[in-house]
Amino acid sequence: MNTSREPPAQIKALDRSDKLAAKRDEFLLPANTIYLNGNSLGPLTRRAQQCVQEAVQLQWGEDLIASWNKHAWIDLPFIAAEKIAKLIGAEPKQLVCCDSVSINLLKLLACCLQMQPSRQLVLSQTDNFPTDLYVAQGLESLLGSARCELKTVAEDELVGALDEDVAALFLSDVNFRSSDRHDIERLTAQAKEKGILVIWDLSHSAGVLPLHLDAWNVDFAVGCGYKYLNGGPGAPAFIYANEKHHAALTQPIQGWMGHIEPFAFDPAYRRGLGMAQFLVGTGPILSLSALNGALDTFAAVAICDVHSKTLALSELFRGLMSQDEYFSSFKLESRSDSARRGAHLAYSHEQAYSICRALNETGVVVDFRSPDIIRFGFSPLFLRYEDVWLAVQALREIVSEKTYLAHRFSRKLKVT
Amino acid sequence: MNTSREPPAQIKALDRSDKLAAKRDEFLLPANTIYLNGNSLGPLTRRAQQCVQEAVQLQWGEDLIASWNKHAWIDLPFIAAEKIAKLIGAEPKQLVCCDSVSINLLKLLACCLQMQPSRQLVLSQTDNFPTDLYVAQGLESLLGSARCELKTVAEDELVGALDEDVAALFLSDVNFRSSDRHDIERLTAQAKEKGILVIWDLSHSAGVLPLHLDAWNVDFAVGCGYKYLNGGPGAPAFIYANEKHHAALTQPIQGWMGHIEPFAFDPAYRRGLGMAQFLVGTGPILSLSALNGALDTFAAVAICDVHSKTLALSELFRGLMSQDEYFSSFKLESRSDSARRGAHLAYSHEQAYSICRALNETGVVVDFRSPDIIRFGFSPLFLRYEDVWLAVQALREIVSEKTYLAHRFSRKLKVT
Repeated sequence: MNTSREPPAQIKALDRSDKLAAKRDEFLLPANTIYLNGNSLGPLTRRAQQCVQEAVQLQWGEDLIASWNKHAWIDLPFIAAEKIAKLIGAEPKQLVCCDSVSINLLKLLACCLQMQPSRQLVLSQTDNFPTDLYVAQGLESLLGSARCELKTVAEDELVGALDEDVAALFLSDVNFRSSDRHDIERLTAQAKEKGILVIWDLSHSAGVLPLHLDAWNVDFAVGCGYKYLNGGPGAPAFIYANEKHHAALTQPIQGWMGHIEPFAFDPAYRRGLGMAQFLVGTGPILSLSALNGALDTFAAVAICDVHSKTLALSELFRGLMSQDEYFSSFKLESRSDSARRGAHLAYSHEQAYSICRALNETGVVVDFRSPDIIRFGFSPLFLRYEDVWLAVQALREIVSEKTYLAHRFSRKLKVT
Repeated sequence: MNTSREPPAQIKALDRSDKLAAKRDEFLLPANTIYLNGNSLGPLTRRAQQCVQEAVQLQWGEDLIASWNKHAWIDLPFIAAEKIAKLIGAEPKQLVCCDSVSINLLKLLACCLQMQPSRQLVLSQTDNFPTDLYVAQGLESLLGSARCELKTVAEDELVGALDEDVAALFLSDVNFRSSDRHDIERLTAQAKEKGILVIWDLSHSAGVLPLHLDAWNVDFAVGCGYKYLNGGPGAPAFIYANEKHHAALTQPIQGWMGHIEPFAFDPAYRRGLGMAQFLVGTGPILSLSALNGALDTFAAVAICDVHSKTLALSELFRGLMSQDEYFSSFKLESRSDSARRGAHLAYSHEQAYSICRALNETGVVVDFRSPDIIRFGFSPLFLRYEDVWLAVQALREIVSEKTYLAHRFSRKLKVT
């Protein structure tokens, strides 16, 4: 294996033939950094930066309150949502951007229970993203277990647990730790056979994996704006409700932005049409503007190309790791079948925390998940094959020199 | 009355002796505009602009995921809250900034019902800000009327409606339309005599009126970040819970940021200590940064001085309006006793909508509330006495020339 810092010709050739290569220029990436953490917080794009600046200086600063109409702040939750719709295979009128994933999941779980009053179970997987479980635990405490009871089972017990007591099945498409991916289409169909409504959390999928929510007949979904969608720290989340349910929905978390006429100041709530009823209070316009700008990066991109490059990047990484004896102490905790995982790879190592820290100090940004997992994320719009190769070289040096044991690794990568 | 565009000497003298006069320089106000709408959306400050720019370029752009610690994003909901605490007379450990007013009110109403399981009524005023009523209506639909029933009465019937069936009384300190202000201390004490928990919505009070939540023994409060606090469009809201209740609270809208150890990824929710349990999902950092920056404008300001200037500005306006026969068709809908109102004045006029529009076209920004109300807001940190005088002159021209009837008023003020 070539341990110099000059990537071999075949790696450079991959970058030259990459049809997404030009997308990297739309990002404002820090110098000397290989960012393998877009699965946690997507980086800044030029367009997001520009949109926030306009929202602050021109819109808020100059036009003030008139911006609600003049700059369409009032429509921003729908404008941003329309750009996400095409990434997840949905007609736009079924999406809106607002609040957080947790709060949106709460809205949907409450809707599902209201739509299925004879059922009280909400079913999930024991190792679902914890915040999704916290939301359901909170709803259980609020409604009482006679109306809402959370049941969690291991992944391989999910299908067996689908029965007529279950009001809603809620799962994360991609596991935040292992990267294991569900078969949304199959599980949705199996749940429907039992009359169960399905909510998918697409936080680790949207913007990087091919999704066909409408074609798969998915009922509901939520997703995060700040991971692969690059919407900025704490960007508003999105919420999807299949149009067939719109007439039956009575979303109970009510605020003026969900009213059919917010500025009528009617004392009685009359729910907005379609997705509007999922809005509650006034949305955070600056954060929403960043998300809306960031989504323009996807404008001329086919999600199948994004997915192909993600797989190629992660398979390159996996191949380099498996070929090299220096990495024998790393155990792949993700599936080797790339079709059944998301866009990150998880490795366990008994020194995972120290290695993460040493890697971050060199400029290869990854993240640690307790107790012993390192996550390597492969966001394909800004990463090059060269970056993957260089990251593996950096990891190899850390491992071979055992510098991580002393937490003293401070050399910085030079990345052009 | 002087109708030239040069304010009389006594007006100029008021500005010269104004101890808050220098604060205006901390704002980035548009040219040729008199902004009497800070009660709806506070204007941009230099510090908010700077904080957003740093959050975007330096923090998100350069330091990426490391900013959660390096730039204290994780603490930002508490850092901003501490600055609000001193404005509302509260010890800081009782506040946090998150979500919207509506969602925070929902959290508190749910807490109150859980704390008082033998009571089911949540009491408010018929003309409370509608979104506050929508929140309660939604909770009623979610929990069923046996556990949550909204009761609304006219303002003068509130005291009589305080009885042992009421779990929580929730009111807006200042009425969004009329500007009528409650006596928080008295009503809180009267509610407590009946064992009722009290939630105050301070959206039209915080940052402009003197508030003493701790001294008044208030249980809970919520408030808006984007009105007198100038936090930017859709800025996160704040939530206050008196420390005496912290041990008894079981806030049911749960997400990972409210967990005692968010990064332990524990499948079971263990609520955070104190105000942390009111956090749900990841907060919108860019919007939160703007709010946090804007709050620095209050750093060396005594709220009693802010309040005094607000009263002086609004009394100047009211005096100019009442002296002049041209304004005989305007009816003051706010109380003439300035101690019993908030920081705006409401006037009704049968041509209110057209007059608002004409005023806005001249550069005097006010707002209209259906069916016939014009609101004039007196934010004292950036308004001058001269501005109030000029606004009245502009209104006088519109009324005397009846230009508003044709919607064709397009002359712009020249304001230095």
